[in-house]
Amino acid sequence: MNSAFDQRGLPVMSRVRVHNFSVSLDGFSAGADQSQEAPFGHAGQRLVQWFTGTRSFHVMTGQEGGSVGIDDAFASNWGPGIGAEIMGRNKFGPQRGPWTDEEWKGWWGEEPPFRTPVFVLTHHVRPSIEMKGGTTFHFIDASPAEALAAAKEAAGGLDVRIGGGPATVRQFLAAGLIDHMHVVVVPIILGRGESLWDGLEGLEESFIIESVSSSSGVTHVTFTRH
Amino acid sequence: MNSAFDQRGLPVMSRVRVHNFSVSLDGFSAGADQSQEAPFGHAGQRLVQWFTGTRSFHVMTGQEGGSVGIDDAFASNWGPGIGAEIMGRNKFGPQRGPWTDEEWKGWWGEEPPFRTPVFVLTHHVRPSIEMKGGTTFHFIDASPAEALAAAKEAAGGLDVRIGGGPATVRQFLAAGLIDHMHVVVVPIILGRGESLWDGLEGLEESFIIESVSSSSGVTHVTFTRH
Repeated sequence: MNSAFDQRGLPVMSRVRVHNFSVSLDGFSAGADQSQEAPFGHAGQRLVQWFTGTRSFHVMTGQEGGSVGIDDAFASNWGPGIGAEIMGRNKFGPQRGPWTDEEWKGWWGEEPPFRTPVFVLTHHVRPSIEMKGGTTFHFIDASPAEALAAAKEAAGGLDVRIGGGPATVRQFLAAGLIDHMHVVVVPIILGRGESLWDGLEGLEESFIIESVSSSSGVTHVTFTRH
Repeated sequence: MNSAFDQRGLPVMSRVRVHNFSVSLDGFSAGADQSQEAPFGHAGQRLVQWFTGTRSFHVMTGQEGGSVGIDDAFASNWGPGIGAEIMGRNKFGPQRGPWTDEEWKGWWGEEPPFRTPVFVLTHHVRPSIEMKGGTTFHFIDASPAEALAAAKEAAGGLDVRIGGGPATVRQFLAAGLIDHMHVVVVPIILGRGESLWDGLEGLEESFIIESVSSSSGVTHVTFTRH
């Protein structure tokens, strides 16, 4: 993990980043009908297969191999320099409303890949859960700005990742709190699901935007705040 | 213009094509609030400026200069081999409902760039209009399949271009009538307007899809029917 100091020992400004965030041509970042059996809903693996093929994903999930081309060049930026993540409750699990199953500790097993504090936004607060490997889930009922203040404090000068889902990324974008966003346009038409772009008309005015296509068929788009 | 025969003199199958069709990241191919003063509605020039900068557009509009890079490589495919165009009434002009101004002859002046028969889909039929330079506008009240039959007849073995707007392209896609489509993803969030993708869930299953980004910031995406 990078430190919060550059090579000359000078402090680097902490940034708020989004990485590896897939979106269909029609603007959906999650399928409809999500459940414990279908975490991506009717989208299945279609939005994420550019990512699951990369070496970064293989390392993250304890597998050998994986591609090391353009897709991995982007995928590998997910971890370094990050000191905390903020995620929406719908990313943490399929339950909605009051917690009925407090045994649920996320999709990621006993040793989640985050290895930092993770702040889960929910109206239904519950005790923090310390996992193996450095991940601790904290459950907070907070506005984007409040959650970011808590995450920055916990990140100790490192960057904060906004991990999704789409509604959470949208809220942070709408509040002007994202410094850097990596979106991956997947050439499929999902037709339904959760939109990444709703309510964000004119978003491009606040960012420098660059695009590059990969031989896997997806296009990586970076948004860097002016 | 190419002939309908290949270099060995063998007939080439006539195809139905879409070219230079811009779409925002959130899936809109036309802005809201179109009018005679604002043909692209609130989108203004944002969806088309990758195109208006090209040599192809400059030639089409009687200007010198223009770029000849990746954007122009795609833009230049618009004309060759096309024998007829089908367009929706909303592309032809800003009037809706019964024609109140029959003097209106389209946005393109006395010598439109089409130089072929152009079939305008409308529930309000009116006499054909012959323009300078080979363009004749025919007004027909027809289904996509009926319009295509008429256009193929008029095209004399050459290809038929579906010229837009978004509703017209969508109808032809939904009817399975498009063989090749060139879409240009422009990295802006329009927020409102006319969607290109509504009702087309799973469209990717019928096409081979390739993508390439251009230094202008847009990404060219081709759909080629299996």
